[in-house]
Amino acid sequence: MMFSLIRNDNIVYLSIGEAHSLRVEQILFKERSEFQEVLVFQSSTYGKVLVLDGIVQLTEKDECAYQEMIAHLPLCSIKSPKNVLVVGGGDGGVLTEISRHNSVELIDICEIDKMVIDVSKRFFPQLAVGFDDPRVRLHVGDAVEFLKCAPAGKYDAVVVDSSDPVGPAQELVERPFFETIARALRPGGVLCNMAESMWLHTHLIQDMISICRETFKGSVRYAWTSVPTYPSGVIGFLLCATEGPAVDFLHPVNPIEELEGAVQHKRQLKYYNSEIHRAAFALPSFVKREVSCL
Amino acid sequence: MMFSLIRNDNIVYLSIGEAHSLRVEQILFKERSEFQEVLVFQSSTYGKVLVLDGIVQLTEKDECAYQEMIAHLPLCSIKSPKNVLVVGGGDGGVLTEISRHNSVELIDICEIDKMVIDVSKRFFPQLAVGFDDPRVRLHVGDAVEFLKCAPAGKYDAVVVDSSDPVGPAQELVERPFFETIARALRPGGVLCNMAESMWLHTHLIQDMISICRETFKGSVRYAWTSVPTYPSGVIGFLLCATEGPAVDFLHPVNPIEELEGAVQHKRQLKYYNSEIHRAAFALPSFVKREVSCL
Repeated sequence: MMFSLIRNDNIVYLSIGEAHSLRVEQILFKERSEFQEVLVFQSSTYGKVLVLDGIVQLTEKDECAYQEMIAHLPLCSIKSPKNVLVVGGGDGGVLTEISRHNSVELIDICEIDKMVIDVSKRFFPQLAVGFDDPRVRLHVGDAVEFLKCAPAGKYDAVVVDSSDPVGPAQELVERPFFETIARALRPGGVLCNMAESMWLHTHLIQDMISICRETFKGSVRYAWTSVPTYPSGVIGFLLCATEGPAVDFLHPVNPIEELEGAVQHKRQLKYYNSEIHRAAFALPSFVKREVSCL
Repeated sequence: MMFSLIRNDNIVYLSIGEAHSLRVEQILFKERSEFQEVLVFQSSTYGKVLVLDGIVQLTEKDECAYQEMIAHLPLCSIKSPKNVLVVGGGDGGVLTEISRHNSVELIDICEIDKMVIDVSKRFFPQLAVGFDDPRVRLHVGDAVEFLKCAPAGKYDAVVVDSSDPVGPAQELVERPFFETIARALRPGGVLCNMAESMWLHTHLIQDMISICRETFKGSVRYAWTSVPTYPSGVIGFLLCATEGPAVDFLHPVNPIEELEGAVQHKRQLKYYNSEIHRAAFALPSFVKREVSCL
Protein backbone atom coordinates (compact mmCIF):
# COMPACT_ATOMS: atom_id res chain seq x y z
CA MET A 1 0.00 0.00 0.00
CA MET A 2 1.45 3.31 -1.07
CA PHE A 3 0.29 6.89 -0.98
CA SER A 4 1.57 10.14 -2.30
CA LEU A 5 2.52 13.49 -0.95
CA ILE A 6 3.38 16.54 -2.93
CA ARG A 7 6.29 18.13 -1.14
CA ASN A 8 8.87 20.58 -2.47
CA ASP A 9 7.79 19.95 -6.05
CA ASN A 10 8.23 16.22 -5.69
CA ILE A 11 5.65 13.47 -5.76
CA VAL A 12 6.66 11.08 -3.03
CA TYR A 13 5.43 7.49 -3.05
CA LEU A 14 5.63 5.93 0.35
CA SER A 15 5.42 2.31 1.27
CA ILE A 16 6.42 0.81 4.58
CA GLY A 17 10.01 1.84 5.22
CA GLU A 18 10.74 3.38 1.86
CA ALA A 19 9.70 6.04 -0.62
CA HIS A 20 10.22 6.80 -4.24
CA SER A 21 9.95 10.38 -5.48
CA LEU A 22 9.66 11.88 -8.91
CA ARG A 23 10.32 15.53 -9.52
CA VAL A 24 7.23 17.39 -10.69
CA GLU A 25 7.57 19.91 -13.50
CA GLN A 26 3.87 20.64 -13.64
CA ILE A 27 0.60 19.23 -12.33
CA LEU A 28 -1.52 18.72 -15.46
CA PHE A 29 -4.70 17.28 -13.96
CA LYS A 30 -6.00 16.55 -10.49
CA GLU A 31 -9.61 15.59 -9.80
CA ARG A 32 -11.56 13.11 -7.75
CA SER A 33 -13.69 10.77 -9.84
CA GLU A 34 -16.59 8.73 -8.51
CA PHE A 35 -14.02 6.06 -7.56
CA GLN A 36 -10.59 7.53 -6.96
CA GLU A 37 -8.27 10.50 -7.15
CA VAL A 38 -6.92 10.92 -10.67
CA LEU A 39 -3.65 12.82 -11.07
CA VAL A 40 -1.49 13.52 -14.09
CA PHE A 41 1.79 15.38 -13.85
CA GLN A 42 4.75 16.15 -16.03
CA SER A 43 7.88 14.70 -14.40
CA SER A 44 11.45 15.77 -15.07
CA THR A 45 12.80 12.49 -16.36
CA TYR A 46 9.96 9.97 -16.76
CA GLY A 47 7.68 11.98 -19.04
CA LYS A 48 4.03 12.34 -18.06
CA VAL A 49 2.84 10.25 -15.12
CA LEU A 50 -0.64 8.89 -14.31
CA VAL A 51 -1.41 8.38 -10.61
CA LEU A 52 -4.60 6.81 -9.19
CA ASP A 53 -5.28 7.14 -5.47
CA GLY A 54 -1.63 7.98 -4.95
CA ILE A 55 -0.28 4.94 -6.79
CA VAL A 56 1.78 5.40 -9.94
CA GLN A 57 -0.03 3.60 -12.76
CA LEU A 58 2.30 4.49 -15.57
CA THR A 59 5.01 6.84 -16.71
CA GLU A 60 5.78 7.50 -20.36
CA LYS A 61 9.35 6.29 -19.88
CA ASP A 62 8.67 2.81 -18.56
CA GLU A 63 5.00 1.96 -19.31
CA CYS A 64 6.19 -0.12 -22.27
CA ALA A 65 7.54 -2.86 -20.01
CA TYR A 66 4.21 -3.32 -18.25
CA GLN A 67 1.78 -2.83 -21.14
CA GLU A 68 3.65 -4.93 -23.66
CA MET A 69 4.24 -7.78 -21.25
CA ILE A 70 0.70 -7.98 -19.85
CA ALA A 71 -0.72 -8.05 -23.40
CA HIS A 72 1.72 -10.27 -25.27
CA LEU A 73 2.56 -12.84 -22.60
CA PRO A 74 -0.98 -14.27 -22.94
CA LEU A 75 -1.66 -13.48 -26.61
CA CYS A 76 1.61 -14.94 -27.86
CA SER A 77 1.01 -18.11 -25.83
CA ILE A 78 -1.99 -19.21 -27.89
CA LYS A 79 -2.55 -19.52 -31.62
CA SER A 80 -4.71 -16.93 -33.40
CA PRO A 81 -6.50 -15.27 -30.47
CA LYS A 82 -9.84 -13.87 -31.65
CA ASN A 83 -11.91 -12.63 -28.71
CA VAL A 84 -10.11 -10.78 -25.94
CA LEU A 85 -11.39 -9.10 -22.78
CA VAL A 86 -9.50 -6.39 -20.92
CA VAL A 87 -10.51 -5.70 -17.32
CA GLY A 88 -9.41 -2.23 -16.22
CA GLY A 89 -6.79 -0.81 -18.53
CA GLY A 90 -8.62 2.49 -18.94
CA ASP A 91 -5.49 4.25 -20.13
CA GLY A 92 -5.77 2.25 -23.36
CA GLY A 93 -2.17 1.03 -23.43
CA VAL A 94 -3.14 -2.63 -23.29
CA LEU A 95 -5.68 -2.09 -26.10
CA THR A 96 -2.96 -0.55 -28.23
CA GLU A 97 -0.76 -3.57 -27.64
CA ILE A 98 -3.54 -6.08 -28.33
CA SER A 99 -4.33 -4.32 -31.58
CA ARG A 100 -0.95 -5.45 -32.95
CA HIS A 101 -2.53 -8.91 -33.31
CA ASN A 102 -4.30 -9.18 -36.66
CA SER A 103 -6.03 -12.41 -35.65
CA VAL A 104 -8.02 -10.56 -32.99
CA GLU A 105 -11.60 -9.77 -34.03
CA LEU A 106 -13.10 -8.38 -30.82
CA ILE A 107 -11.56 -6.54 -27.89
CA ASP A 108 -14.03 -5.98 -25.08
CA ILE A 109 -12.78 -3.60 -22.40
CA CYS A 110 -14.51 -3.13 -19.08
CA GLU A 111 -13.21 -0.12 -17.16
CA ILE A 112 -15.10 1.18 -14.15
CA ASP A 113 -13.83 4.76 -14.19
CA LYS A 114 -14.64 6.87 -17.24
CA MET A 115 -12.44 9.68 -15.97
CA VAL A 116 -9.36 7.48 -16.44
CA ILE A 117 -10.29 6.97 -20.10
CA ASP A 118 -10.95 10.67 -20.69
CA VAL A 119 -7.75 11.70 -18.98
CA SER A 120 -5.72 9.20 -20.97
CA LYS A 121 -7.21 10.38 -24.26
CA ARG A 122 -6.24 13.92 -23.32
CA PHE A 123 -2.77 13.40 -21.85
CA PHE A 124 -1.57 10.04 -23.19
CA PRO A 125 -2.88 9.97 -26.77
CA GLN A 126 -0.19 7.50 -27.86
CA LEU A 127 -1.64 4.97 -25.38
CA ALA A 128 -5.31 5.87 -25.79
CA VAL A 129 -5.07 5.42 -29.55
CA GLY A 130 -6.03 1.82 -28.81
CA PHE A 131 -9.62 3.00 -28.19
CA ASP A 132 -9.86 4.00 -31.87
CA ASP A 133 -9.38 0.42 -33.05
CA PRO A 134 -12.73 -0.61 -34.63
CA ARG A 135 -12.45 -4.02 -32.93
CA VAL A 136 -12.70 -2.37 -29.49
CA ARG A 137 -15.99 -2.33 -27.58
CA LEU A 138 -15.88 -0.14 -24.51
CA HIS A 139 -18.02 -1.02 -21.48
CA VAL A 140 -17.85 1.49 -18.66
CA GLY A 141 -18.83 -0.41 -15.56
CA ASP A 142 -18.05 -3.06 -13.01
CA ALA A 143 -16.05 -5.99 -14.41
CA VAL A 144 -17.50 -8.49 -11.94
CA GLU A 145 -21.02 -7.72 -13.19
CA PHE A 146 -19.87 -7.67 -16.80
CA LEU A 147 -18.26 -11.09 -16.48
CA LYS A 148 -21.36 -12.59 -14.85
CA CYS A 149 -23.31 -11.69 -17.99
CA ALA A 150 -20.65 -12.80 -20.46
CA PRO A 151 -21.44 -15.99 -22.41
CA ALA A 152 -19.49 -18.99 -21.10
CA GLY A 153 -16.46 -19.81 -23.21
CA LYS A 154 -16.56 -16.53 -25.14
CA TYR A 155 -12.97 -15.37 -24.79
CA ASP A 156 -9.65 -16.72 -25.96
CA ALA A 157 -7.81 -14.43 -23.56
CA VAL A 158 -8.57 -12.14 -20.61
CA VAL A 159 -6.14 -9.47 -19.45
CA VAL A 160 -6.69 -8.05 -15.97
CA ASP A 161 -4.91 -4.70 -15.90
CA SER A 162 -6.22 -3.57 -12.54
CA SER A 163 -4.81 -1.17 -10.02
CA ASP A 164 -3.59 -2.47 -6.65
CA PRO A 165 -6.16 -4.54 -4.74
CA VAL A 166 -7.49 -1.63 -2.73
CA GLY A 167 -10.29 0.76 -3.62
CA PRO A 168 -12.30 -0.20 -6.71
CA ALA A 169 -10.03 -3.16 -7.53
CA GLN A 170 -10.44 -5.00 -4.22
CA GLU A 171 -12.78 -7.68 -5.57
CA LEU A 172 -10.35 -8.49 -8.36
CA VAL A 173 -8.09 -10.76 -6.33
CA GLU A 174 -10.85 -12.89 -4.84
CA ARG A 175 -11.94 -16.39 -5.76
CA PRO A 176 -15.38 -15.55 -7.24
CA PHE A 177 -13.76 -13.14 -9.66
CA PHE A 178 -11.34 -15.76 -10.93
CA GLU A 179 -14.19 -18.23 -11.23
CA THR A 180 -16.18 -15.89 -13.48
CA ILE A 181 -13.08 -15.39 -15.63
CA ALA A 182 -12.48 -19.13 -15.94
CA ARG A 183 -16.12 -19.53 -16.99
CA ALA A 184 -15.85 -16.80 -19.62
CA LEU A 185 -12.77 -18.39 -21.20
CA ARG A 186 -12.93 -21.08 -23.87
CA PRO A 187 -11.22 -24.41 -23.13
CA GLY A 188 -7.48 -23.74 -23.34
CA GLY A 189 -8.12 -20.00 -23.01
CA VAL A 190 -5.72 -17.85 -21.02
CA LEU A 191 -5.76 -15.21 -18.30
CA CYS A 192 -2.98 -12.72 -17.60
CA ASN A 193 -3.45 -10.97 -14.27
CA MET A 194 -1.28 -8.25 -12.73
CA ALA A 195 0.36 -9.99 -9.76
CA GLU A 196 2.39 -7.69 -7.52
CA SER A 197 6.11 -7.71 -6.66
CA MET A 198 8.11 -10.82 -5.89
CA TRP A 199 10.33 -8.75 -3.57
CA LEU A 200 7.44 -7.40 -1.49
CA HIS A 201 4.34 -9.57 -1.76
CA THR A 202 5.19 -13.28 -1.83
CA HIS A 203 2.27 -14.03 0.52
CA LEU A 204 -0.22 -12.34 -1.78
CA ILE A 205 1.31 -14.07 -4.79
CA GLN A 206 1.04 -17.42 -3.06
CA ASP A 207 -2.63 -16.77 -2.26
CA MET A 208 -3.43 -15.81 -5.84
CA ILE A 209 -1.61 -18.82 -7.24
CA SER A 210 -3.39 -21.18 -4.83
CA ILE A 211 -6.78 -19.84 -5.86
CA CYS A 212 -5.91 -19.98 -9.56
CA ARG A 213 -4.56 -23.52 -9.37
CA GLU A 214 -7.95 -24.61 -8.06
CA THR A 215 -9.99 -22.46 -10.42
CA PHE A 216 -8.14 -22.91 -13.70
CA LYS A 217 -7.38 -26.52 -14.42
CA GLY A 218 -4.60 -25.90 -16.94
CA SER A 219 -1.14 -24.42 -16.53
CA VAL A 220 -0.59 -21.66 -13.93
CA ARG A 221 2.71 -19.76 -14.11
CA TYR A 222 4.24 -16.62 -12.63
CA ALA A 223 6.29 -14.18 -14.71
CA TRP A 224 7.86 -10.81 -13.89
CA THR A 225 9.35 -7.78 -15.53
CA SER A 226 11.36 -4.70 -14.63
CA VAL A 227 9.35 -1.47 -14.22
CA PRO A 228 11.52 1.19 -12.49
CA THR A 229 8.66 3.30 -11.13
CA TYR A 230 6.76 0.42 -9.51
CA PRO A 231 7.53 -0.51 -5.89
CA SER A 232 10.80 -2.52 -5.75
CA GLY A 233 11.24 -1.97 -9.50
CA VAL A 234 9.40 -5.07 -10.65
CA ILE A 235 5.86 -6.24 -11.37
CA GLY A 236 4.59 -9.76 -11.74
CA PHE A 237 1.97 -11.46 -13.89
CA LEU A 238 -0.06 -14.55 -13.20
CA LEU A 239 -0.69 -16.60 -16.34
CA CYS A 240 -3.47 -19.19 -16.12
CA ALA A 241 -4.97 -21.53 -18.72
CA THR A 242 -8.30 -23.29 -18.52
CA GLU A 243 -8.64 -27.00 -19.12
CA GLY A 244 -8.47 -27.94 -22.77
CA PRO A 245 -5.73 -27.76 -25.39
CA ALA A 246 -2.53 -27.54 -23.33
CA VAL A 247 -0.87 -24.12 -23.09
CA ASP A 248 2.88 -23.86 -22.53
CA PHE A 249 3.37 -20.27 -21.45
CA LEU A 250 7.15 -20.59 -21.48
CA HIS A 251 7.36 -21.12 -25.23
CA PRO A 252 5.28 -18.64 -27.25
CA VAL A 253 3.51 -20.53 -30.07
CA ASN A 254 2.37 -17.24 -31.58
CA PRO A 255 5.69 -15.34 -31.68
CA ILE A 256 5.25 -11.63 -32.22
CA GLU A 257 8.22 -11.39 -34.56
CA GLU A 258 6.32 -13.57 -37.05
CA LEU A 259 3.02 -11.65 -36.95
CA GLU A 260 2.62 -9.38 -39.92
CA GLY A 261 3.09 -5.75 -38.95
CA ALA A 262 3.04 -6.45 -35.21
CA VAL A 263 6.48 -5.18 -34.24
CA GLN A 264 6.19 -1.85 -36.09
CA HIS A 265 2.40 -1.40 -35.70
CA LYS A 266 1.55 2.24 -34.83
CA ARG A 267 4.60 2.44 -32.59
CA GLN A 268 7.59 0.14 -32.42
CA LEU A 269 7.69 -2.48 -29.67
CA LYS A 270 9.97 -1.09 -26.99
CA TYR A 271 10.28 -3.90 -24.48
CA TYR A 272 8.70 -7.21 -25.48
CA ASN A 273 10.27 -9.85 -27.69
CA SER A 274 10.17 -13.65 -27.66
CA GLU A 275 13.41 -13.95 -25.66
CA ILE A 276 12.07 -11.62 -22.98
CA HIS A 277 8.85 -13.67 -22.97
CA ARG A 278 10.67 -16.88 -22.14
CA ALA A 279 13.03 -15.18 -19.68
CA ALA A 280 10.15 -13.61 -17.72
CA PHE A 281 9.26 -17.01 -16.25
CA ALA A 282 12.69 -17.62 -14.72
CA LEU A 283 12.27 -17.06 -10.99
CA PRO A 284 14.83 -16.30 -8.29
CA SER A 285 15.43 -19.16 -5.87
CA PHE A 286 13.86 -17.30 -2.93
CA VAL A 287 10.63 -16.86 -4.89
CA LYS A 288 10.47 -20.55 -5.72
CA ARG A 289 10.89 -21.37 -2.03
CA GLU A 290 8.56 -18.72 -0.58
CA VAL A 291 5.79 -19.37 -3.07
CA SER A 292 5.56 -23.04 -2.34
CA CYS A 293 2.99 -23.83 -5.02
CA LEU A 294 5.21 -22.65 -7.87
CA MET B 1 25.31 10.18 -10.10
CA MET B 2 23.48 10.03 -6.80
CA PHE B 3 24.01 11.51 -3.39
CA SER B 4 22.37 11.16 -0.06
CA LEU B 5 20.72 13.37 2.47
CA ILE B 6 19.61 12.44 5.90
CA ARG B 7 16.29 14.15 6.43
CA ASN B 8 13.51 13.36 8.85
CA ASP B 9 15.06 9.99 9.67
CA ASN B 10 15.20 8.98 6.03
CA ILE B 11 18.18 8.41 3.83
CA VAL B 12 17.30 9.96 0.50
CA TYR B 13 19.08 8.90 -2.69
CA LEU B 14 18.77 11.49 -5.39
CA SER B 15 19.47 11.18 -9.03
CA ILE B 16 18.34 13.55 -11.75
CA GLY B 17 14.59 13.91 -11.42
CA GLU B 18 13.98 11.19 -8.86
CA ALA B 19 14.86 9.98 -5.40
CA HIS B 20 14.63 6.77 -3.45
CA SER B 21 14.46 6.90 0.33
CA LEU B 22 14.88 4.27 2.99
CA ARG B 23 13.69 4.85 6.53
CA VAL B 24 16.56 4.88 9.02
CA GLU B 25 16.13 3.10 12.33
CA GLN B 26 19.67 3.81 13.45
CA ILE B 27 22.95 5.08 12.04
CA LEU B 28 25.46 2.38 12.94
CA PHE B 29 28.64 3.80 11.42
CA LYS B 30 29.65 6.97 9.63
CA GLU B 31 33.25 7.89 8.93
CA ARG B 32 35.35 9.27 6.11
CA SER B 33 38.06 6.87 4.94
CA GLU B 34 41.07 7.90 2.89
CA PHE B 35 38.89 7.44 -0.22
CA GLN B 36 35.22 7.94 0.53
CA GLU B 37 32.47 8.38 3.10
CA VAL B 38 31.48 5.04 4.61
CA LEU B 39 28.03 4.79 6.15
CA VAL B 40 26.12 1.86 7.64
CA PHE B 41 22.57 2.17 8.90
CA GLN B 42 19.78 -0.06 10.07
CA SER B 43 16.77 0.42 7.78
CA SER B 44 13.16 -0.41 8.62
CA THR B 45 12.53 -2.94 5.89
CA TYR B 46 15.77 -3.69 4.00
CA GLY B 47 17.95 -4.75 6.96
CA LYS B 48 21.36 -3.11 7.36
CA VAL B 49 22.54 -0.91 4.50
CA LEU B 50 26.07 -0.05 3.34
CA VAL B 51 26.50 3.32 1.62
CA LEU B 52 29.72 4.64 0.01
CA ASP B 53 29.90 8.31 -0.94
CA GLY B 54 26.13 8.47 -0.78
CA ILE B 55 25.51 5.51 -3.09
CA VAL B 56 23.78 2.40 -1.75
CA GLN B 57 26.17 -0.51 -2.19
CA LEU B 58 24.05 -3.19 -0.61
CA THR B 59 21.13 -3.90 1.67
CA GLU B 60 20.69 -7.18 3.51
CA LYS B 61 17.35 -7.73 1.80
CA ASP B 62 18.43 -7.57 -1.82
CA GLU B 63 22.23 -7.96 -1.92
CA CYS B 64 21.74 -11.60 -2.92
CA ALA B 65 20.62 -10.66 -6.42
CA TYR B 66 23.76 -8.66 -7.10
CA GLN B 67 26.39 -10.77 -5.33
CA GLU B 68 25.18 -14.13 -6.58
CA MET B 69 24.80 -12.96 -10.17
CA ILE B 70 28.14 -11.15 -10.45
CA ALA B 71 29.95 -14.22 -9.07
CA HIS B 72 28.11 -17.11 -10.73
CA LEU B 73 27.41 -15.65 -14.17
CA PRO B 74 31.15 -15.87 -14.98
CA LEU B 75 32.11 -18.89 -12.85
CA CYS B 76 29.28 -21.09 -14.12
CA SER B 77 30.14 -20.17 -17.72
CA ILE B 78 33.52 -21.97 -17.65
CA LYS B 79 34.52 -25.45 -16.53
CA SER B 80 36.43 -25.86 -13.25
CA PRO B 81 37.57 -22.28 -12.57
CA LYS B 82 40.75 -22.35 -10.46
CA ASN B 83 42.25 -18.86 -10.15
CA VAL B 84 39.88 -15.96 -9.63
CA LEU B 85 40.51 -12.26 -9.07
CA VAL B 86 38.00 -9.92 -7.44
CA VAL B 87 38.47 -6.18 -7.99
CA GLY B 88 36.71 -4.16 -5.31
CA GLY B 89 34.17 -6.26 -3.43
CA GLY B 90 35.48 -5.21 -0.03
CA ASP B 91 32.23 -6.24 1.67
CA GLY B 92 33.21 -9.86 1.03
CA GLY B 93 29.90 -10.92 -0.49
CA VAL B 94 31.42 -11.88 -3.83
CA LEU B 95 34.14 -13.88 -2.03
CA THR B 96 31.47 -15.78 -0.13
CA GLU B 97 29.73 -16.62 -3.39
CA ILE B 98 32.93 -17.65 -5.16
CA SER B 99 33.79 -19.92 -2.26
CA ARG B 100 30.82 -22.13 -3.22
CA HIS B 101 32.96 -23.38 -6.10
CA ASN B 102 35.14 -26.29 -4.94
CA SER B 103 37.23 -26.18 -8.11
CA VAL B 104 38.58 -22.76 -7.12
CA GLU B 105 42.07 -22.88 -5.62
CA LEU B 106 42.96 -19.18 -5.32
CA ILE B 107 40.82 -16.07 -4.84
CA ASP B 108 42.84 -12.89 -5.05
CA ILE B 109 40.93 -9.80 -3.96
CA CYS B 110 42.16 -6.28 -4.52
CA GLU B 111 40.19 -3.69 -2.57
CA ILE B 112 41.48 -0.14 -2.26
CA ASP B 113 39.66 0.83 0.95
CA LYS B 114 40.45 -1.14 4.09
CA MET B 115 37.69 0.63 5.99
CA VAL B 116 35.09 -1.07 3.78
CA ILE B 117 36.49 -4.47 4.72
CA ASP B 118 36.61 -3.67 8.45
CA VAL B 119 33.10 -2.24 8.43
CA SER B 120 31.75 -5.27 6.60
CA LYS B 121 33.39 -7.69 9.05
CA ARG B 122 31.75 -5.77 11.88
CA PHE B 123 28.26 -5.15 10.46
CA PHE B 124 27.80 -7.73 7.68
CA PRO B 125 29.51 -10.85 9.05
CA GLN B 126 27.39 -13.13 6.87
CA LEU B 127 28.95 -11.47 3.81
CA ALA B 128 32.44 -10.93 5.19
CA VAL B 129 32.70 -14.62 6.11
CA GLY B 130 34.16 -15.00 2.62
CA PHE B 131 37.40 -13.44 3.89
CA ASP B 132 37.89 -16.47 6.16
CA ASP B 133 38.14 -18.86 3.23
CA PRO B 134 41.76 -20.10 3.21
CA ARG B 135 41.85 -19.74 -0.58
CA VAL B 136 41.44 -15.96 -0.28
CA ARG B 137 44.45 -13.64 -0.54
CA LEU B 138 43.64 -10.07 0.35
CA HIS B 139 45.53 -7.22 -1.32
CA VAL B 140 44.66 -3.77 -0.02
CA GLY B 141 45.56 -1.39 -2.79
CA ASP B 142 44.94 -0.06 -6.25
CA ALA B 143 43.61 -2.69 -8.68
CA VAL B 144 45.16 -1.02 -11.73
CA GLU B 145 48.63 -1.33 -10.17
CA PHE B 146 47.90 -4.85 -8.95
CA LEU B 147 46.85 -5.99 -12.40
CA LYS B 148 49.95 -4.49 -14.05
CA CYS B 149 52.07 -6.75 -11.86
CA ALA B 150 49.93 -9.87 -12.30
CA PRO B 151 51.45 -12.61 -14.47
CA ALA B 152 49.87 -12.75 -17.93
CA GLY B 153 47.26 -15.48 -18.28
CA LYS B 154 47.05 -16.13 -14.52
CA TYR B 155 43.30 -16.00 -13.98
CA ASP B 156 40.38 -18.08 -15.19
CA ALA B 157 37.94 -15.37 -14.14
CA VAL B 158 38.00 -11.75 -13.00
CA VAL B 159 35.03 -10.15 -11.21
CA VAL B 160 34.96 -6.37 -11.08
CA ASP B 161 32.68 -5.45 -8.19
CA SER B 162 33.39 -1.74 -8.22
CA SER B 163 31.33 1.18 -7.08
CA ASP B 164 29.98 3.65 -9.64
CA PRO B 165 32.60 5.11 -11.96
CA VAL B 166 33.20 8.20 -9.85
CA GLY B 167 35.69 8.68 -7.02
CA PRO B 168 38.13 5.82 -6.53
CA ALA B 169 36.48 3.66 -9.24
CA GLN B 170 36.81 6.15 -12.09
CA GLU B 171 39.70 4.38 -13.81
CA LEU B 172 37.77 1.11 -13.84
CA VAL B 173 35.68 1.85 -16.92
CA GLU B 174 38.59 2.96 -19.11
CA ARG B 175 40.30 1.09 -21.91
CA PRO B 176 43.72 0.58 -20.21
CA PHE B 177 42.01 -1.11 -17.28
CA PHE B 178 40.21 -3.58 -19.52
CA GLU B 179 43.45 -4.24 -21.38
CA THR B 180 45.25 -5.19 -18.17
CA ILE B 181 42.39 -7.52 -17.28
CA ALA B 182 42.45 -9.18 -20.70
CA ARG B 183 46.19 -9.68 -20.28
CA ALA B 184 45.77 -11.23 -16.84
CA LEU B 185 43.18 -13.75 -18.09
CA ARG B 186 44.09 -17.10 -19.61
CA PRO B 187 42.87 -17.84 -23.16
CA GLY B 188 39.12 -18.42 -22.87
CA GLY B 189 39.10 -16.74 -19.46
CA VAL B 190 36.17 -14.54 -18.45
CA LEU B 191 35.48 -11.11 -16.98
CA CYS B 192 32.26 -10.08 -15.24
CA ASN B 193 32.06 -6.33 -14.77
CA MET B 194 29.34 -4.33 -13.05
CA ALA B 195 27.66 -2.43 -15.92
CA GLU B 196 25.05 0.10 -14.81
CA SER B 197 21.30 0.28 -15.55
CA MET B 198 19.76 -0.41 -18.95
CA TRP B 199 16.99 2.10 -18.10
CA LEU B 200 19.38 4.96 -17.28
CA HIS B 201 22.80 4.46 -18.85
CA THR B 202 22.58 3.00 -22.35
CA HIS B 203 25.30 5.39 -23.57
CA LEU B 204 27.73 4.26 -20.89
CA ILE B 205 26.84 0.63 -21.57
CA GLN B 206 27.46 1.12 -25.28
CA ASP B 207 30.87 2.69 -24.54
CA MET B 208 31.89 -0.19 -22.27
CA ILE B 209 30.76 -2.79 -24.78
CA SER B 210 32.60 -1.07 -27.63
CA ILE B 211 35.82 -1.01 -25.63
CA CYS B 212 35.41 -4.63 -24.53
CA ARG B 213 34.64 -5.89 -28.03
CA GLU B 214 38.00 -4.48 -29.14
CA THR B 215 39.91 -5.59 -26.06
CA PHE B 216 38.54 -9.09 -25.51
CA LYS B 217 38.46 -11.12 -28.67
CA GLY B 218 35.92 -13.71 -27.49
CA SER B 219 32.24 -13.37 -26.65
CA VAL B 220 30.96 -10.10 -25.12
CA ARG B 221 27.43 -10.16 -23.65
CA TYR B 222 25.26 -7.97 -21.45
CA ALA B 223 23.10 -9.40 -18.66
CA TRP B 224 20.92 -7.74 -16.03
CA THR B 225 19.14 -8.47 -12.79
CA SER B 226 16.57 -6.92 -10.49
CA VAL B 227 17.97 -5.11 -7.41
CA PRO B 228 15.23 -2.97 -5.82
CA THR B 229 17.53 -0.52 -4.03
CA TYR B 230 19.68 0.30 -7.07
CA PRO B 231 18.66 3.21 -9.32
CA SER B 232 15.77 2.13 -11.59
CA GLY B 233 15.67 -1.23 -9.79
CA VAL B 234 18.10 -3.05 -12.05
CA ILE B 235 21.84 -3.53 -12.48
CA GLY B 236 23.69 -4.89 -15.47
CA PHE B 237 26.79 -7.02 -15.96
CA LEU B 238 29.20 -7.10 -18.85
CA LEU B 239 30.51 -10.60 -19.54
CA CYS B 240 33.62 -10.85 -21.70
CA ALA B 241 35.76 -13.78 -22.76
CA THR B 242 39.30 -13.66 -24.09
CA GLU B 243 40.32 -15.42 -27.28
CA GLY B 244 40.70 -19.16 -26.82
CA PRO B 245 38.28 -21.97 -26.05
CA ALA B 246 34.88 -20.49 -26.94
CA VAL B 247 32.68 -19.38 -24.06
CA ASP B 248 28.88 -19.40 -24.44
CA PHE B 249 27.69 -17.23 -21.55
CA LEU B 250 24.05 -18.00 -22.27
CA HIS B 251 24.36 -21.67 -21.43
CA PRO B 252 26.22 -22.36 -18.17
CA VAL B 253 28.56 -25.34 -18.71
CA ASN B 254 29.32 -25.44 -14.99
CA PRO B 255 25.76 -25.41 -13.57
CA ILE B 256 25.67 -24.57 -9.88
CA GLU B 257 22.99 -27.14 -9.15
CA GLU B 258 25.48 -29.89 -10.06
CA LEU B 259 28.38 -28.60 -7.94
CA GLU B 260 28.76 -30.52 -4.73
CA GLY B 261 27.60 -28.45 -1.75
CA ALA B 262 27.34 -25.22 -3.76
CA VAL B 263 23.63 -24.45 -3.33
CA GLN B 264 23.60 -24.99 0.45
CA HIS B 265 27.19 -23.86 1.16
CA LYS B 266 27.32 -21.69 4.34
CA ARG B 267 24.06 -20.04 3.36
CA GLN B 268 21.48 -21.14 0.82
CA LEU B 269 21.50 -19.50 -2.59
CA LYS B 270 18.73 -16.91 -2.54
CA TYR B 271 18.61 -15.61 -6.08
CA TYR B 272 20.81 -17.40 -8.60
CA ASN B 273 19.95 -20.60 -10.43
CA SER B 274 20.64 -21.86 -13.95
CA GLU B 275 17.30 -20.62 -15.31
CA ILE B 276 17.94 -17.12 -13.98
CA HIS B 277 21.42 -17.29 -15.50
CA ARG B 278 20.05 -17.93 -18.99
CA ALA B 279 17.20 -15.44 -18.57
CA ALA B 280 19.56 -12.63 -17.50
CA PHE B 281 20.81 -12.28 -21.08
CA ALA B 282 17.37 -11.64 -22.57
CA LEU B 283 17.28 -7.92 -23.36
CA PRO B 284 14.34 -5.57 -23.92
CA SER B 285 13.94 -4.40 -27.50
CA PHE B 286 14.85 -0.79 -26.66
CA VAL B 287 18.16 -1.93 -25.17
CA LYS B 288 19.01 -3.93 -28.29
CA ARG B 289 18.30 -0.88 -30.42
CA GLU B 290 19.99 1.76 -28.22
CA VAL B 291 23.10 -0.31 -27.63
CA SER B 292 23.85 -0.86 -31.27
CA CYS B 293 26.80 -3.16 -30.75
CA LEU B 294 24.77 -5.79 -28.88
